[in-house]
Amino acid sequence: MNGAESLIRGLTSAGVNVCFANPGTSEMHMVQAIDGVNDMRAILCLFEGVCTGAADGYARMKETPACTLLHLGAGLGNGIANLHNARRASTPLVNLIGDHAAYHVHYDAPLTSDIADIAKGVSSWIRSSATAQGLGQDARDAVAAALSANPDNVGNVATLIIPADCSWGAGHSTAGGRLTKQTAEVTNDGVIEAVDALGNSGADTLLLLDGLGLSAEGVQQAGRIVKKTGCRVFSTTFPARVESGPGLFPVPRMPYFPEHVMDVMGSVKKIVMAGARAPVSFFAYPNSPSKLYSSDCDLVRLAHRHQNVETALKRVADALDAPEFPDTVSHGQRPVLPEGELTTSKIGQALAAMIPDKSIVAVDSGGGGAAYATLQQSVRHTWLNLTGGSIGQGGPVSVGAAVACPERPVFALLGDGGAGYTIQYLWTAARENLNIVTVIFSNSSYNILDVEYHRLGVNSVGEKAASLFDLSNPEIDWVSLATGYGVPAARAVTADEFVLALQEGMKVDGPFLIEAKVNARD
Amino acid sequence: MNGAESLIRGLTSAGVNVCFANPGTSEMHMVQAIDGVNDMRAILCLFEGVCTGAADGYARMKETPACTLLHLGAGLGNGIANLHNARRASTPLVNLIGDHAAYHVHYDAPLTSDIADIAKGVSSWIRSSATAQGLGQDARDAVAAALSANPDNVGNVATLIIPADCSWGAGHSTAGGRLTKQTAEVTNDGVIEAVDALGNSGADTLLLLDGLGLSAEGVQQAGRIVKKTGCRVFSTTFPARVESGPGLFPVPRMPYFPEHVMDVMGSVKKIVMAGARAPVSFFAYPNSPSKLYSSDCDLVRLAHRHQNVETALKRVADALDAPEFPDTVSHGQRPVLPEGELTTSKIGQALAAMIPDKSIVAVDSGGGGAAYATLQQSVRHTWLNLTGGSIGQGGPVSVGAAVACPERPVFALLGDGGAGYTIQYLWTAARENLNIVTVIFSNSSYNILDVEYHRLGVNSVGEKAASLFDLSNPEIDWVSLATGYGVPAARAVTADEFVLALQEGMKVDGPFLIEAKVNARD
Repeated sequence: MNGAESLIRGLTSAGVNVCFANPGTSEMHMVQAIDGVNDMRAILCLFEGVCTGAADGYARMKETPACTLLHLGAGLGNGIANLHNARRASTPLVNLIGDHAAYHVHYDAPLTSDIADIAKGVSSWIRSSATAQGLGQDARDAVAAALSANPDNVGNVATLIIPADCSWGAGHSTAGGRLTKQTAEVTNDGVIEAVDALGNSGADTLLLLDGLGLSAEGVQQAGRIVKKTGCRVFSTTFPARVESGPGLFPVPRMPYFPEHVMDVMGSVKKIVMAGARAPVSFFAYPNSPSKLYSSDCDLVRLAHRHQNVETALKRVADALDAPEFPDTVSHGQRPVLPEGELTTSKIGQALAAMIPDKSIVAVDSGGGGAAYATLQQSVRHTWLNLTGGSIGQGGPVSVGAAVACPERPVFALLGDGGAGYTIQYLWTAARENLNIVTVIFSNSSYNILDVEYHRLGVNSVGEKAASLFDLSNPEIDWVSLATGYGVPAARAVTADEFVLALQEGMKVDGPFLIEAKVNARD
Repeated sequence: MNGAESLIRGLTSAGVNVCFANPGTSEMHMVQAIDGVNDMRAILCLFEGVCTGAADGYARMKETPACTLLHLGAGLGNGIANLHNARRASTPLVNLIGDHAAYHVHYDAPLTSDIADIAKGVSSWIRSSATAQGLGQDARDAVAAALSANPDNVGNVATLIIPADCSWGAGHSTAGGRLTKQTAEVTNDGVIEAVDALGNSGADTLLLLDGLGLSAEGVQQAGRIVKKTGCRVFSTTFPARVESGPGLFPVPRMPYFPEHVMDVMGSVKKIVMAGARAPVSFFAYPNSPSKLYSSDCDLVRLAHRHQNVETALKRVADALDAPEFPDTVSHGQRPVLPEGELTTSKIGQALAAMIPDKSIVAVDSGGGGAAYATLQQSVRHTWLNLTGGSIGQGGPVSVGAAVACPERPVFALLGDGGAGYTIQYLWTAARENLNIVTVIFSNSSYNILDVEYHRLGVNSVGEKAASLFDLSNPEIDWVSLATGYGVPAARAVTADEFVLALQEGMKVDGPFLIEAKVNARD
């Protein structure tokens, strides 16, 4: 057994069974080891940002990490943006990065770079393996690090750097069983403080949810508290995963733009944070505050995101003697099918009318977010957000989610700008025959930038500035791109065409793409 | 004038007139400033790796830097791989990276990350601007840093991080004129040592060229030395830019695989390094040395790559009393057009037969490199290599080269694996109507990995390993991808079809793509 084999066996022993890979020469022994270890599935991606985003989507659904296999610092670099998003999602994830043989590094061959430097900003744990003999344990340590209970600004991305001579040197097997996610329980004091804060509350108290507070159990427990106390409840703007739909207590999401957040927060005197942090502005704007709650607002911490928010909420609800659910749960209602002109909201309406129960919805930038409330009222689903603001995550996340849950239909709702960064995910979706229906909200612009530009106080947009928000010259033909990657596709210009395309996409065995033409001002 | 405007004016005053941009909200004031400054051209790219690769290609041709405009750490991350390549090319390049307003950073909003950490490995110079008033000078300092004479392992990528509040704060204009590339002359001692080494040399002495040693002037001076002394001459394997073709002394390139390098180096007792470093293996292999020259080989340093290799070679040639050129220069001969089955070498033959004089040829991984010797014998051209081994550079580099030299036809020779990383460059090529003919060497595999796998001593390739080298399931339809990005395209399965497609591509005003079907074992 060489080091690479002990590494891969170390991973599988710990419960890691999927590798999203884009290897190069320095990873060939790891490829050989994957080849020889039955429990490790290898999924090839054309670009590393697809590997890292897919690993994120996989673990959000599966709650055990996937690994990536990336080629030195440059390969890691291509994966950084979606690792940033994964860090923000606190997704457990193990990166395997091949490096030159240790004795070769000082020759400074062209692909040499300091891999740890690049990994630093996204990783909660980094190790460069020192010996072939240690690789099995290094692998298990990486998985343990990914599964540890880390604060939400640290994340759960573990990066293991493997010099090629460790891979090909003599390794040995490592003992140990499956590793599982660590979640700390909150203290009684925290529960008591939250009970005090919520006990005599009303609409000026906000229960703010993230992490496990947005699981099926979490929202039900939050619902008990809301029903009992009359407090308001919101999720953060971009939680990693939300269980939503009929049968579950409906939690609205905090808006994105600061003035809309402040509309929500204006009357709030107390925030009980259950897995969440108090709201701050996504970007800074001149003459707009960073902190989006009033300075005399009380902040009460029930649970950090890495703690067991579910049980914390239940303990609070029980202490408040809140009645059990589900007497007030909505049973949901499917809307009618949309007709006429195609708009962002009609896409949400069609999805709410048509997608199957237990769908997974992965959302990037663009119009997809508008479907949140509509879907919540109509169909039980798992919603996966863009977490770190680095667009181009939704497609790769949909790949990982579909690999994790092959029995559940997946929908990727992507703006055309964001889809452009990592469109290569379509090829992996075709190769693995994943049931992903992609909707491209094609408004042929970086619409958000045009909006932000005006928000920043610029009232006239010159020709050059306009050109930097414009994706219409030339228009991207998403149907052709999908065809190029082996994914059948259709274009919808009207709501009726969208409905037909969605029907077709849901019928197809494997991926499908719908280019939905919407208005930039929609 | 706000800070952003003084920044852009600082750049243009220093001679930077092109910005390859993929901005976000934190860069909106810079967009506004670009909008208002006539001398700055803005070119939008769909992905940051295209921005950074294009800036590299631009400066390799123009010898003045372009700037990029990227969105915080995640945007920089997407550009890292081609910045790594640009660093290895010692290309002068200025990154403008927007950051949150300084006062906003500690709120740790989702897109917050340590940008300098990510920039560190690729940048020779990093500054995070402290004041709006200083931005104009910061810009000029960045350009000066990019143009400074840095050792070749440091590179010339300058990264300026601009907090949003510096952009929108009050700036002022900065004095100063155009800045130019700094190149140090070598000392007389260096010249004398090289003259001694070469004076009584023969075929056991190797003159190894890189940097300006591969300019038109450089190769002619090298040719004088070779003719006079009988020494051997090679370029390094992946120099950033080579002037080549009839009328110029033909310099062969050092092979890639270590055993082939050692075939060249076997009899070499002395290396005179003119802008080059002595050859080392690109990757480490078990039982293969890293250093690819014998331990009793004398290393003589004539010039480092950041020095004036051209004049150093001339001084050596003059001291050796070498006759002037060009009596022995070849006048070149165009090969006949290929026929029959399409192979990698027939693509080189067709290019050598057909492409115009003064073409620019940008090469990534894949079969393109095989065209080097053929083109050298037949047509005057500029050859731009993949420098840092991070594939996906050639397409973006072709964009930058075409922007820098609109009067010269550009050919991008790309393997299908590498093209998959940054295929979004096609959209910018269409948008800017750039005369780039792309040839995709489509063998539907990461062929190099299959080769490397066997070289590493693995003789049987199992199903999973084979799947990680395979791009045939599904086959990528490059014609559809090109169509999707607005670029006309054709597929060539035979040599005759390739010739027709190349004729068409050269006739088209704007970009064209040829999917050339070649055999993986070719």
